Amino acid sequence: MIEHPAFAVEPWAVRETELHLDVLEGAGSIFALANGHIGLRGNLDESEPAGLPGTYLNGFYERRPQPYSEAGYGDPQAGQAAVNVTNGKIIRLLVDDEPFDVRFGELRRHERTLDLRAGVLRRRADWRSPTGRCVRISSTRLVSFVQRAVAAVLYEVEPLESAARLVVQSELVANEPMPAAESDPRVAEALGSPLRSERFSDRDLRAVLVHITEQSRLRMAAAMDHLVTGPPGTEATTESAPDLARVTVTADAEPGQRLTIVKLLAYGWSSRRTTAALLAQVVAALAEARHTGWEGLLAEQRAYLDDFWAHADIELEGDAELQQAVRFALFHTLQAGARGERRAIAAKGLTGPGYDGHAFWDSESFVLPVLTYTLPRAAGDALRWRHSTLPAARERARLLGLRGAAFPWRTIDGLECSGYWPASTAAFHIAADIADAVGRYQAATDDRAFEREVGLELLVETARLWRSLGHWDSRRRFRIDGVTGPDEYSALADNNLYTNLMAQRNLLLAADAAERHGDRAAELGVEAGEAQAWREAARSILVPYDERLGVHPQAEGFTEHEPWDFERTPPDRYPLMLHYPYFDLYRRQVVKQADLVLALHLRGDAFTAEEKARDFAYYEALTVRDSSLSACTQAIVAAEVGHVELACDYFAIAALMDLDDLQRNTRDGLHIAALAGAWLAAVAGLGGMRDHDGELSFAPRLPRRLTRLAFGMLFRGRSLRVEVAREEARYSLLDGRPLTVAHHGEPLELTPGRPVARLIPPASAGEAPSQPPGREPWRWAAARRPGSGASSEEAMSDKI
Amino acid sequence: MIEHPAFAVEPWAVRETELHLDVLEGAGSIFALANGHIGLRGNLDESEPAGLPGTYLNGFYERRPQPYSEAGYGDPQAGQAAVNVTNGKIIRLLVDDEPFDVRFGELRRHERTLDLRAGVLRRRADWRSPTGRCVRISSTRLVSFVQRAVAAVLYEVEPLESAARLVVQSELVANEPMPAAESDPRVAEALGSPLRSERFSDRDLRAVLVHITEQSRLRMAAAMDHLVTGPPGTEATTESAPDLARVTVTADAEPGQRLTIVKLLAYGWSSRRTTAALLAQVVAALAEARHTGWEGLLAEQRAYLDDFWAHADIELEGDAELQQAVRFALFHTLQAGARGERRAIAAKGLTGPGYDGHAFWDSESFVLPVLTYTLPRAAGDALRWRHSTLPAARERARLLGLRGAAFPWRTIDGLECSGYWPASTAAFHIAADIADAVGRYQAATDDRAFEREVGLELLVETARLWRSLGHWDSRRRFRIDGVTGPDEYSALADNNLYTNLMAQRNLLLAADAAERHGDRAAELGVEAGEAQAWREAARSILVPYDERLGVHPQAEGFTEHEPWDFERTPPDRYPLMLHYPYFDLYRRQVVKQADLVLALHLRGDAFTAEEKARDFAYYEALTVRDSSLSACTQAIVAAEVGHVELACDYFAIAALMDLDDLQRNTRDGLHIAALAGAWLAAVAGLGGMRDHDGELSFAPRLPRRLTRLAFGMLFRGRSLRVEVAREEARYSLLDGRPLTVAHHGEPLELTPGRPVARLIPPASAGEAPSQPPGREPWRWAAARRPGSGASSEEAMSDKI
Repeated sequence: MIEHPAFAVEPWAVRETELHLDVLEGAGSIFALANGHIGLRGNLDESEPAGLPGTYLNGFYERRPQPYSEAGYGDPQAGQAAVNVTNGKIIRLLVDDEPFDVRFGELRRHERTLDLRAGVLRRRADWRSPTGRCVRISSTRLVSFVQRAVAAVLYEVEPLESAARLVVQSELVANEPMPAAESDPRVAEALGSPLRSERFSDRDLRAVLVHITEQSRLRMAAAMDHLVTGPPGTEATTESAPDLARVTVTADAEPGQRLTIVKLLAYGWSSRRTTAALLAQVVAALAEARHTGWEGLLAEQRAYLDDFWAHADIELEGDAELQQAVRFALFHTLQAGARGERRAIAAKGLTGPGYDGHAFWDSESFVLPVLTYTLPRAAGDALRWRHSTLPAARERARLLGLRGAAFPWRTIDGLECSGYWPASTAAFHIAADIADAVGRYQAATDDRAFEREVGLELLVETARLWRSLGHWDSRRRFRIDGVTGPDEYSALADNNLYTNLMAQRNLLLAADAAERHGDRAAELGVEAGEAQAWREAARSILVPYDERLGVHPQAEGFTEHEPWDFERTPPDRYPLMLHYPYFDLYRRQVVKQADLVLALHLRGDAFTAEEKARDFAYYEALTVRDSSLSACTQAIVAAEVGHVELACDYFAIAALMDLDDLQRNTRDGLHIAALAGAWLAAVAGLGGMRDHDGELSFAPRLPRRLTRLAFGMLFRGRSLRVEVAREEARYSLLDGRPLTVAHHGEPLELTPGRPVARLIPPASAGEAPSQPPGREPWRWAAARRPGSGASSEEAMSDKI
Repeated sequence: MIEHPAFAVEPWAVRETELHLDVLEGAGSIFALANGHIGLRGNLDESEPAGLPGTYLNGFYERRPQPYSEAGYGDPQAGQAAVNVTNGKIIRLLVDDEPFDVRFGELRRHERTLDLRAGVLRRRADWRSPTGRCVRISSTRLVSFVQRAVAAVLYEVEPLESAARLVVQSELVANEPMPAAESDPRVAEALGSPLRSERFSDRDLRAVLVHITEQSRLRMAAAMDHLVTGPPGTEATTESAPDLARVTVTADAEPGQRLTIVKLLAYGWSSRRTTAALLAQVVAALAEARHTGWEGLLAEQRAYLDDFWAHADIELEGDAELQQAVRFALFHTLQAGARGERRAIAAKGLTGPGYDGHAFWDSESFVLPVLTYTLPRAAGDALRWRHSTLPAARERARLLGLRGAAFPWRTIDGLECSGYWPASTAAFHIAADIADAVGRYQAATDDRAFEREVGLELLVETARLWRSLGHWDSRRRFRIDGVTGPDEYSALADNNLYTNLMAQRNLLLAADAAERHGDRAAELGVEAGEAQAWREAARSILVPYDERLGVHPQAEGFTEHEPWDFERTPPDRYPLMLHYPYFDLYRRQVVKQADLVLALHLRGDAFTAEEKARDFAYYEALTVRDSSLSACTQAIVAAEVGHVELACDYFAIAALMDLDDLQRNTRDGLHIAALAGAWLAAVAGLGGMRDHDGELSFAPRLPRRLTRLAFGMLFRGRSLRVEVAREEARYSLLDGRPLTVAHHGEPLELTPGRPVARLIPPASAGEAPSQPPGREPWRWAAARRPGSGASSEEAMSDKI
């Protein structure tokens, strides 16, 4: 956890005004720039102290062995890990032969700002060298949303007080040394120096390095070019070697004179293209960037973001910290998915090495619901990526003795990379999560081409999976046994309710789609009666219920299990999986993350209001929130059942997950799904947005701390804006044909230019639920950061 | 499977009359000699072709890393693997400079005989070298039951037809090269050359090598001495080096002259004793062996075995093959456990590298029931070994958040070595299996000192485990959730019935013992009311029952699961775990090995006869017998419920497990528990022996193929013999005070010298149960081996 006020509170920026080496690695994630295609961690320009260096290309990984003490049939033998590729953001500085290093000399001023509207990371440093020379360094870094292969840095240095000899070294560095972390020596070996040089070249101020990975045989090219202006006599030279290219600029500058370098970077990678083709590609990208120019790149970036914020921004009044956090969250969600373009959206986006760069179900279940309504093209692309992995998923299903497609729990290229099957292969709900994302995307976009080309096949193959995974018991109930639901503190249970209800939706979505596209379904081999069988399985799906307690068990038998002994669990034993064996967690009533409660959200149509209230209260008392994927769902359901203050607390946890390093692992990369969850907590939680069966409904309600909430959504080509005040909500359709939405159950016909306002009915909250002792939601308004709107006294009095 | 008639059928020997290189490795296990302390695989004297070389010292292992792709809390980080230690059985021969190697020249005669009464392995070979010299080689090898550190070889060679120059090299070889097998390179590295030399020395014809392991820091000494007689001019020299000691004997012999070498071997090992102490120890053992002399060693061995067979032999009339097999099985059970003396009895005994030399629950559940009634001291010693591992088991329980002792699923020294927890750590039934073995041993021996010193503490600590593992639900049922029973095709189920019933017995045994030894129990911290709480847990233990089907589910929910699709499982897909993922196996009704059926045997007192019949039939249809631990239990319960022909089939499977290589992995070592199970199948199956609550009862009944069965047992210091004919059974107490046993429910008072005969009531077998298609029990009497009593036609007509 970041214990000191690391970042100032501002509405449109995250600003660091002091450099703390202990948060350097966390800041590397927070200040990461990415566009879904390439990602640069927020490392210092001069590369040292490095914290954790990181440059990532979406889908660029190395294979490595997956070891097992006792292997089983079907255990994946090859893992994948995202590679820290050729680092192009390095710009070193020497001042009178003294290397600029913040650990030495005196850093008189330090500021880094992530500008959420400009889409750049700015840095300003005033430094006095150990020998007394003073310089001012400014840099601005961007990863272009518009030119997806391109990143750029504007680097400026000027002497203060007295003249200085300046040397700037702008580099490409491959196989840069990494801090030791992995305990498995083979892993370290595989990834210690993952790139093998294939070509290096330079010409003028441009240089290119081409490398290939040993095992996965992926090829990449990194190129840089430079525009240099400086005092008279400024000179520049270029050199290149297998793992290093360098442009060296030398200048003698007086105070008031500035050396300015625009560094243009381009990356290209492929599993198929030749060295020559990749080399040409990156040189072309550089040429285009050079043609656009630094100012042009900045302007494009701004325009892209203006467009995004215009329909996607969430405005919060009453708490500046939360306002900042939710924009930060949305910005990074955008960075993770904007230009993925048929590559995966990883759990950490392109911000760090966590989870080896793998993508999980959280992409479909948490990130895509946001992108579907804010950047639908990106959501469609992500689903097209899933679709492109169907051959591997079909093969995996075949290996597992199943029909249809079994998508991997974690992967980069579509092959299963999980090393512990009870919490991965058995978590078949990912199939239904993908189907749900398909259904949501289709309903929100009316993208008929997508449905025919992509959506239908995903639905059909996942429906087939469920059909072969489940079976009808003697009472004609369709059971799905021995699977793992979202909650990772349970595994291999019969009839996990979330799984069964999501499978039910999956089966019905597939049947509907197959009937809508009979010809295409026939091409996919959907046989006569197959869709009918899906409907029958959906109709008879088993939904366990505990009559005695009046709640739904998370899975059959769950409510019979021994409750976890929370009273005897000291605070330092969380997260539990680091201190207790899975055996003990699995057999008890303790919930890592929303599971049944996620069903209450996503399959809210399958529960009565009373059931939701009882179920939520029951699971609140068991949920320890050791996963970052829990708080947003708890926010959503808390709001629905009337506990809007609690919802706001959970909202804050999701939004501040990384700014406050709540999981203490922000260094490994941002929790993209949790950040996306902040949008969900605001829109589906406080805003009460639901999209069951493709119908949009809202049930907004403000917590006491907020005076206003406004959010936008794209829906079937229209832009919708919802503004929520204490007493009323106002719905505006900004363009397009009329649209019917619901406000607290009342249908509203919306027409462009005619906002509709409605009063908000009073909430009917029951008794406040309780959480496990010590695991109550973090008090979000504890005013630990400068500029935060609330004092801690105020925050504590807010406790429900 | 051994496809050709490898071994001749004889009542007291296993004889090989042809050398087939393809069964060399399997024969290495079958011809292994061991005494529970040291074990020599049945490799050829001249060491090549090696097949799989093997020399093992009980408890001598090397540590190695346990890799995980995704490690969890509590996963063991260090594994253990038995080391192939210094090979002392090598005796090479050169005939006129031509090395004796059966792959070259002509092997005119080959015979190896495992003599089950003499306790030796004899070999006879007539060989013509490639250059035409003929020699006769005879060797006799023994591993002494009496002098447990000692093995010996009598090696004789004589020229046939013409004179020959003979060179015999008798060696100790450390770190001998092993065939590559492990795919994990680190494993190979750790065990490729596991011994580091500490000392080597030689004097006269004696040599000693002392080594230590790198990680586990175990030290061993191997020593050899020789008695040489030969033609005039025979000379011998000795040399030693770090990994090799060699005595070279040269002789020029005429036909009719014989070179004779007695090689005496001694091993010593320790984790604590110094090099000097170990060296002295093995030299002393050699001195004693030399003092005894070859003939003396032979005589001791014969006397030891005569005593064993006198009370333990099983006689079968009607099938010579089964007679041989059951004696072979009993001989190897003896070899595995005879002189273990507070070391573990491994799953493979000391016959091969399988399972890394680990001991499992099968020791207590299958091997000790045999030793308890045939060699009770060895059973007590094995339990004393378990007792010695209590500190590690307590620490493991603490790590797992439990009280009492959590014994390892697999281990050499007491530390858990399992790499896949759902099928190991979660198989807590091992605690109850140990307790059951304690209860059985105590009831069968009245060993009060054992109970106070060893038994009570084992019972108390395992009872504590159950108390902390289970919990009372709202209906005051004592539940044990999320555990794995014996069947390895299910895992992590609630209320596995075998586990619950065995835990129930465990809790009651502990309560009884604690009350019998109040003072000692107090020393163990048994608190007031603790024993009462064990009784309460035992009383309220949950025993699931499926009212609809009228059978007991193996665990809660089991009978609701989808049945395995046996019809669509081709024969080449067995064993299933090599062809289907655990996920698929776990969620279905398919049983690897007796689980509920094992409860029907061991907790037969908890079921009615009707329940047993219904349950047995239900599980027969689901049991694929992919484990070698299944057939004997199926034999026992089949016999009890009236299917005595089926019982006999299963008996044969257990008994022939290795002679016929039924699991196709006899090369890795014998299936000691299955072989012990042959005794159980005969005595508890055909003989109907039960020992519930320490009372002996019998319900013998012969299958059609047998005309007579006789077996002996030791019970409370007395020797009992039971002879079963078609119509009647006869019970003889050979010594000691009178004893009451039951015959088909009728109590009989037995007095020495007064055999009691009783008629056998007719069997009331219901409908024959069916097995999964293709998994019916192997037809044991298919007459595939010379001398077998039955033709295959006859056998097939016997099918029930």
